[in-house]
Amino acid sequence: MNFGSDNTAGFSPEMLEALIRANDGRAMPYGSDPVTARVKDRIAEVFETEVEVFPVSTGTAANSLAISLMSPAWGAVWCHVESHVNTDECGAPEFFSGGAKLIPVEGDHGKFTAAQLAARLEWAGHRGVHEAQPSAVTITQATEAGTIYSVDEVAAIAAVCRGRNLGLHMDGARFANALVSQGCSPAEATWKAGVDILSFGATKNGALAAEAVVVFSESLRAKAAELAYRRKRAGHLFSKMRFLSAQLEAYLTDDLWLSNARHANAMATRLAEGLAKLPGVRLVHAVEANEVFPLLPAAVSEGLRRDGFLFYDWPDAGPGGVRLICAFESREEDVEAFLKSARFHADAAA
Amino acid sequence: MNFGSDNTAGFSPEMLEALIRANDGRAMPYGSDPVTARVKDRIAEVFETEVEVFPVSTGTAANSLAISLMSPAWGAVWCHVESHVNTDECGAPEFFSGGAKLIPVEGDHGKFTAAQLAARLEWAGHRGVHEAQPSAVTITQATEAGTIYSVDEVAAIAAVCRGRNLGLHMDGARFANALVSQGCSPAEATWKAGVDILSFGATKNGALAAEAVVVFSESLRAKAAELAYRRKRAGHLFSKMRFLSAQLEAYLTDDLWLSNARHANAMATRLAEGLAKLPGVRLVHAVEANEVFPLLPAAVSEGLRRDGFLFYDWPDAGPGGVRLICAFESREEDVEAFLKSARFHADAAA
Amino acid sequence: MNFGSDNTAGFSPEMLEALIRANDGRAMPYGSDPVTARVKDRIAEVFETEVEVFPVSTGTAANSLAISLMSPAWGAVWCHVESHVNTDECGAPEFFSGGAKLIPVEGDHGKFTAAQLAARLEWAGHRGVHEAQPSAVTITQATEAGTIYSVDEVAAIAAVCRGRNLGLHMDGARFANALVSQGCSPAEATWKAGVDILSFGATKNGALAAEAVVVFSESLRAKAAELAYRRKRAGHLFSKMRFLSAQLEAYLTDDLWLSNARHANAMATRLAEGLAKLPGVRLVHAVEANEVFPLLPAAVSEGLRRDGFLFYDWPDAGPGGVRLICAFESREEDVEAFLKSARFHADAAA
Amino acid sequence: MNFGSDNTAGFSPEMLEALIRANDGRAMPYGSDPVTARVKDRIAEVFETEVEVFPVSTGTAANSLAISLMSPAWGAVWCHVESHVNTDECGAPEFFSGGAKLIPVEGDHGKFTAAQLAARLEWAGHRGVHEAQPSAVTITQATEAGTIYSVDEVAAIAAVCRGRNLGLHMDGARFANALVSQGCSPAEATWKAGVDILSFGATKNGALAAEAVVVFSESLRAKAAELAYRRKRAGHLFSKMRFLSAQLEAYLTDDLWLSNARHANAMATRLAEGLAKLPGVRLVHAVEANEVFPLLPAAVSEGLRRDGFLFYDWPDAGPGGVRLICAFESREEDVEAFLKSARFHADAAA
Repeated sequence: MNFGSDNTAGFSPEMLEALIRANDGRAMPYGSDPVTARVKDRIAEVFETEVEVFPVSTGTAANSLAISLMSPAWGAVWCHVESHVNTDECGAPEFFSGGAKLIPVEGDHGKFTAAQLAARLEWAGHRGVHEAQPSAVTITQATEAGTIYSVDEVAAIAAVCRGRNLGLHMDGARFANALVSQGCSPAEATWKAGVDILSFGATKNGALAAEAVVVFSESLRAKAAELAYRRKRAGHLFSKMRFLSAQLEAYLTDDLWLSNARHANAMATRLAEGLAKLPGVRLVHAVEANEVFPLLPAAVSEGLRRDGFLFYDWPDAGPGGVRLICAFESREEDVEAFLKSARFHADAAA
Repeated sequence: MNFGSDNTAGFSPEMLEALIRANDGRAMPYGSDPVTARVKDRIAEVFETEVEVFPVSTGTAANSLAISLMSPAWGAVWCHVESHVNTDECGAPEFFSGGAKLIPVEGDHGKFTAAQLAARLEWAGHRGVHEAQPSAVTITQATEAGTIYSVDEVAAIAAVCRGRNLGLHMDGARFANALVSQGCSPAEATWKAGVDILSFGATKNGALAAEAVVVFSESLRAKAAELAYRRKRAGHLFSKMRFLSAQLEAYLTDDLWLSNARHANAMATRLAEGLAKLPGVRLVHAVEANEVFPLLPAAVSEGLRRDGFLFYDWPDAGPGGVRLICAFESREEDVEAFLKSARFHADAAA
Repeated sequence: MNFGSDNTAGFSPEMLEALIRANDGRAMPYGSDPVTARVKDRIAEVFETEVEVFPVSTGTAANSLAISLMSPAWGAVWCHVESHVNTDECGAPEFFSGGAKLIPVEGDHGKFTAAQLAARLEWAGHRGVHEAQPSAVTITQATEAGTIYSVDEVAAIAAVCRGRNLGLHMDGARFANALVSQGCSPAEATWKAGVDILSFGATKNGALAAEAVVVFSESLRAKAAELAYRRKRAGHLFSKMRFLSAQLEAYLTDDLWLSNARHANAMATRLAEGLAKLPGVRLVHAVEANEVFPLLPAAVSEGLRRDGFLFYDWPDAGPGGVRLICAFESREEDVEAFLKSARFHADAAA
Repeated sequence: MNFGSDNTAGFSPEMLEALIRANDGRAMPYGSDPVTARVKDRIAEVFETEVEVFPVSTGTAANSLAISLMSPAWGAVWCHVESHVNTDECGAPEFFSGGAKLIPVEGDHGKFTAAQLAARLEWAGHRGVHEAQPSAVTITQATEAGTIYSVDEVAAIAAVCRGRNLGLHMDGARFANALVSQGCSPAEATWKAGVDILSFGATKNGALAAEAVVVFSESLRAKAAELAYRRKRAGHLFSKMRFLSAQLEAYLTDDLWLSNARHANAMATRLAEGLAKLPGVRLVHAVEANEVFPLLPAAVSEGLRRDGFLFYDWPDAGPGGVRLICAFESREEDVEAFLKSARFHADAAA
C-alpha cells in the first residue's frame, strides 16, 4: 500500500469518460478545439474573473512557464527554501527563464510570512545593475509541508509584493486540497488575495497528466501571448490538445476536483490523528491538506516497510521524519491497516 | 471532413484499453513503474538492439531532447530547410540545446542527398573556434513532403556523418508510415543504416500524446543519463508515466502501429491516384507515406472548402499547393467524397 | 607582412595618449565616470540625434547584445548567409538571445537586396505559434565581401523591415570604412536610412578593443535599460570603463576614425588596382572599403606566402579565392612589395 | 579621495609600457600571438604546474566561464551567500552555464567552513533526477569580507568536494592580496590545496581590464577546449588579444602583482588600525587583505563624506557598516587624511 505520493494513484474514472467523449471525431489541433475553448470558459467561471489559460501536462512545466512570464533572464524570484521549484525541478525555472535566480527564503512548516519575506527583500535591488533584478515571489499552496497559507497570509505576502512591484505566483499542484481546507472561494484564495498567476494542478488529484497556467492579473494577461511561444518551444503544446483539456473539463465538472480533494484530506487527517496517539510518534507539521509528516522511531518505519507500506524518508522534517500522502482514491481500510501496523510496532518499541 | 493533419484524428480504441489496464492500482511514479520497464524492453525487441528509451508527450520534445544530446550549445546541426525542427518548433531545438545553430540544407521533395549534404559540409569547421562546431545532422522520415528516404539514402547520409564525426538523428514523427512503405525491418531502417538516435512518434498514428526518444549508438547511450536531467528540467518527466508508457505499449502490441500506418498510407495513395486523374491537378511530390501535395486550381480548392473539406494551403509546394494528410482512421468514404467533390470542381473549371 | 585582417594591426598612437589621460586619478567604476559620459554625448553629436550608448570590448558582444534587444528567444532574425553573426561568432547571437534563430539569406557580393529579403519574408509568420517569430534583420556595413550598401539600398531594406514590424540592425565593425566610401553623414548612413541600432566598431580601425552599441530608434531606446542588465550578466560591464571609453573618445576626436579608415581604404584600392592588372588574377568583389578578394592562381598564392606575405584562403570567394585586408597603418611600401611579389609570380606562371 | 573600491584606481605605469611594447608591428589575432603564448608559460611557471589559461577582460567573465566548465545546465554550485557570483553578477553564472543553480551557504566573515559546507551537502543528491545535480563549490579569495581562507581551510573544503566528486573553483579577483597575506606559494594556495580552477584577477590590482581563467586539475584540463568555444560565443575572445595578454605579462613581471598587493594591504591595515582606536567605531571583520569593514556612527560617516571621502554603505556588515578598500596606488597621506577626518568626527560625536 503506497503512501509515497498522490502521484502514485491512477486517475478518476470520470477522466476516462471525458477522454472517450473527446475522441469522437476529428478536431482542430494545438488547442483550436471546442473542449479547450470550454475549459478556458469554465476556469473563468470557477475563478469568477477574466483569465488566460494554458493547459500543460506537468506541474514543472506550469510553474516554469509562469515564472518565465514574470521574471526576465536577469530576474530574481523569491521562494521557500523547501519549495518544489527550488528543490524538485532540476533547475526547470532557471531553464525556462533563461537563468533567473531563485532566492530561497527560510520559514517554518513550509511557509514564510510576509514579514520574513519583507526582511529578505529589504536590501533587494540596492546593488543596481550588478544584482539579479527583483521580479517575483512564488508560494506553494498547499505547501510542501502539507500546511496551507490562510487567505490573510497570502494577502499579506501579496501586499509586500505589490509594494515592490513584484509578481506573485502560486504553485497550486495541490490547490484543490488547500481550497477545501480554506473554506473560501477559488477567487478569494487567489486573485482577490493578490495572486497574479496560478499553476492549477489536476494530476495529483485525479487526472492522468493535466495542469493549467491560469493568468489573472491584467499586466500579465497583457503579455500572456508570450506564453504561447514559450509553451510551444518547450515542447508543451499538444497537437491533440483536446485530450489534455478533456481532463481539465472533467476535473471541474460536478465538483470532482473538490470531492477528490476532500476525500484525500480526510484520509490524511484520519492517518494523522491515529499516528498522533502512538508512543514515540510526533507530527512535525499541522495536517491541513493531504500530507502527514510524522517523526517515527526507526523500529516503526522499518516495521511498516516490512509490512508492505511504501513511503519516503523526509530528512527536511527532522531525524526519523517520513512523508505520508493520501490521494483521491486512498481507501479507509488502507489507512486503518497502516495505523494498525504502526501501532503494533510502536507498542513493541515502547 | 478533415484532411488538415493526422493530428486532427483521435486515438485508436486500443489506447483506451491500455489506459484502463494501466490504471489498476498504485504504481511508482516518474517511470519506475512496470509498464515503462516493459516498453523499453519492447522497443529493444522491435529494433533488435540495445537501446535507451525516454518517453515524452510531444514530437517537439523528442526532437529537441535528441538534438540537445548530440550538439553542445555551440554546435551546428544540419537539417532540411523545410524540416519540422527548422520551421515548426518555434526554436525548440535552439532552446533545449542552449542555442545550437540549425543550418538549413536545400533539396527537392523534402530530402537532401548525401552529396548535397557533403557539399554543405565541405568547409564546415574551417573557421575554427569562430564557427558553430559541426555536431550533427537530422533527417525526417517520412519527410515533410510525404516522401521517404530509402535505406540506401539513409546509409549514404550516415556515411557522410561518420566521416566527419557527426551524429545522425531521425525525426520519426511518421516513422511507421515510412517503415511500411520501405518494407524493411525497424533495425534496417535505423541503426543498421547508421541512425544514432530516433524520435519515435506515436501521436500522429493513433496515440493520444506519446513519443519516445530511442538512443541506439553506443556513444550516445553512454551519455544518455543526461537526457534524464534534460527531460526533467524541460518539464517532460511525467509523474504518472505509466499512462504515457501504456500508449507506447499498446502502439507496439499486435502490430497496431504498422496496421494503422498501412491504412493511412493506403488512403493517401487512393487520394493521390484519384487526384492525379483530374484536369488541372498535379502532384508535386511522390506519395510514399500518408501525405499528398497536389497543386489545385483555385476553383477546386475553394469548391472543396465550400463542400466542407478542411486542409492547409502549402506555399512550399508551389502556387496552388495544398497539403492533404490521411490518418489511421481516415475512412474510405471520406476519401471518395473528397475525390468526388474535387472532380466536380475540376471538371467545372476545366 | 600581414594582410590577414585589420585586427592584426596594433592601435593608433592617439589611443595611448587617451589611456594616459584617462589614468589620471580615481574615477567611479562601471561607466559612472566622466569619460563615458562624454563619449555618449560625442556619439550623439556625431550621429546628430538622441542615442543610448553601451561601450563593449568586442564586435561579437556588440552584435549579440544588439540582436538580443531586438529579438526574443523565440524570434527569427534574417541575415546574410556569409555574415559575421552567422558564420564567425560561434553562436553568440543565439547565446545572448536565448536561442533566437538566424535565417540566412543569399545574395551576391556579401549583400542581399530589399527584393531578396522581401521574397524570403513573404511567408514568414504564416505558421503562427509554430514558427520562430519574425523579429529583426541585420546587415553588415561594410560587408564581409568588402562591398558597401548604398544609402538607398539600406533605406529600401529598412522599408521592408518597417512594413513587417522588424527591427533593423547594422553590424558596423567596419562602419568607418564604409562611411568614408559612401560620402554621406553618419546620420544619413544609419538612422535617417532606417537603421534602428548599430554596432559601432573601433577595434579594427585603430583601437585596442572598443566597440559601442548605439541605439537610435525610439522604441529600442525605450527598452535599452535591458541592455545594461544583459551587458552585465554577459561579463561585458567593465569596472574600469573609463579605459574603454577613452578609446572611443580618441577614436572620435579630430576625425581619427575617418582618417584611419580613409587610409585603409586607399591602400586596399591601390592593392586591388595593382592586382587587377596581373595575368590570371580576377577580383571577385568591388573594392569599396578596405578588403580585396582576388582569385589567385595557385602559383601566385604560394609564391606570395613563400615571400612572407600572410593572408587567408577564402573559399566563399570561389576557387583560388583569398582575402586581403588593409588597415589604418598599412604602409604603402608593403602594398607595393605585395604587388611586386604577385606580379613576379603571376608573370612566371603566365 | 576614493575608498569605494580598488576598481576606482587606474592602472600601474608598467601596464602602459607593456601595451607600447605589444603594439610593435603586426601580430596574429585571437590569441595566436607570442605575448599570449608567453603568458601561458609564465602562469605555468608561477603556479609550478601544467595549466590551461584563458585570458578575459572581466572577473564576471572569468568566474562564469569557470563555473560553466564545472557545472552542466542542470547542475548545482555551492557558494557563500555574500559571494560576488551570487550577489554581484546579475546572474552571469546562470547565463553562462545555461541555468545552473547557485546554492547559498551561510558563514561568518564571508567564509564558510568545511563543516558548514558538508552540512549543506549532507542530503544533496538524494532527490535524484528531480534535483539540480551537485557539481561544484566556489569560494572567494580574498573573500567579500576582506578575510582570507587559510591554506588549511581551503584544503578542508577541497576534501569535502573530492569526497562528493565536486569541482572546486576559487574566485581570485583579489588573489594577490590574499596570497601576500598567506605567505605561501601560489601553488600551495591553489592546486596543492585542492583548487581545480582559478579566476586569476589583475584588474583590481593594477591592470586596465585583465583576468585569466587558470585550469589546474587534469579532469578539467581535459575538457578545457570547451572554454575556447564558450569564451568566443560570450564575446570574450579578443581579436587583438596581445593587449590583454600584455597586461597579464606585466602583472607577473618583476613581482608587480605582489608588490601592488602588499601596498594595498598595508594601506588597509593602517586604515584599520587607525579606525579601531576611535570611539564608537568597531571593525566587523579581521583585515587580512585590502578591505576594511567598520561600523561607523552616522555622524562619522556623514562627516567623512562631507569632507570628500567616497565609500559605500555595506548593510551586510550590520547597522552603520561601510566598506573601505585600498588599492595598489592608495597614498599614505590619503589614508592619514581619512583617519584624521574620522577621528575628528568620532571625537565630536563621542
